Amino acid sequence: MDERLKKQLDFALEIDKEKNIFRQTHLSGHGRNENDAEHAWHMAIMAYLLKEYANEEVDISKVMLMCLIHDIVEIEAGDTYAYDEVNLKTQKAREDVAKEKIYSLLPDDQKLELIALFDEFEAYETPESKFAHAMDNLQPLMLNNSNGGEDWRQHGVTSAQVHGRQDKTKLGSQKLFEVVNDIIQNNIEKGNIKE
Amino acid sequence: MDERLKKQLDFALEIDKEKNIFRQTHLSGHGRNENDAEHAWHMAIMAYLLKEYANEEVDISKVMLMCLIHDIVEIEAGDTYAYDEVNLKTQKAREDVAKEKIYSLLPDDQKLELIALFDEFEAYETPESKFAHAMDNLQPLMLNNSNGGEDWRQHGVTSAQVHGRQDKTKLGSQKLFEVVNDIIQNNIEKGNIKE
Repeated sequence: MDERLKKQLDFALEIDKEKNIFRQTHLSGHGRNENDAEHAWHMAIMAYLLKEYANEEVDISKVMLMCLIHDIVEIEAGDTYAYDEVNLKTQKAREDVAKEKIYSLLPDDQKLELIALFDEFEAYETPESKFAHAMDNLQPLMLNNSNGGEDWRQHGVTSAQVHGRQDKTKLGSQKLFEVVNDIIQNNIEKGNIKE
Repeated sequence: MDERLKKQLDFALEIDKEKNIFRQTHLSGHGRNENDAEHAWHMAIMAYLLKEYANEEVDISKVMLMCLIHDIVEIEAGDTYAYDEVNLKTQKAREDVAKEKIYSLLPDDQKLELIALFDEFEAYETPESKFAHAMDNLQPLMLNNSNGGEDWRQHGVTSAQVHGRQDKTKLGSQKLFEVVNDIIQNNIEKGNIKE
């Protein structure tokens, strides 16, 4: 097997480990914790189906690929819970080391391409990044809401914390932010999210 | 919320169940069984990274979407093991009922679009379908090989069975079929696949 193909297959096998990176979110039906690979799969399909609600025109295949790869660094860096103030401070440094290590398994051209795509996602500036982030926010919110807000209650999450993250959903989709906002208000009223 | 968006979000929540459909394949590192959502995520990224090896030019975003949705019917129809001769006979009928039921949650235009994409995958005729199937074959083979062929040994799988499925990989990618064929030969020599 030539060197290029071997590198690509080594990377493909390495990312299998993303299926063992578990998140705080639980599957609908009060299921187990979700892992990063499942979350990414779900986001990518949602992005495709909801693309008509993006504020700006997006290259949807780029958004989907962004969704699919955005958590690969967590194989090395671990998942950082959205409301974990301590670990959020070191998240970028940990993920920078991780991205160099993991993407270096690939041939150089693909390493540079996927790092650029990950960096674009993180920068939250392009239409594609903003819409991918809207999915990254909406997907766990939808699952958590379907479980009666159990994840928020368990972590004692406040409305300021949820709004701090979820208000950025409107950068990607004003329409979907309205859905998000309704869900948040509803869960505040029910006491699932603390005022 | 308008009716169209409500239908799209209902579908998005429904497909969360795909994360509970477990396959015979085990994760690398002698891990637990893999589920359909993880398998689909893995296939879609592999398709993107390995697209240069497709026999024919492919619309890669179409291939990726095909990979992502190809097992959604299994939420209703269940997973059918590639070498389960009894259940393979009823697979198409079960999946036809399932696809009508699940995709009917979507607005009509998206229902028709995703059913057409699923049918195209199943028909194994277009360049995109053939390449998506190559991923559907290569991905579990790669995991199983990384685990010393444990899944084949456990099920007493024969070389005729493996070749019966995997030889079609060459319809999507001659180059990747060479890799597949080497892995099969190697596992026959080690006694992991019965002659």
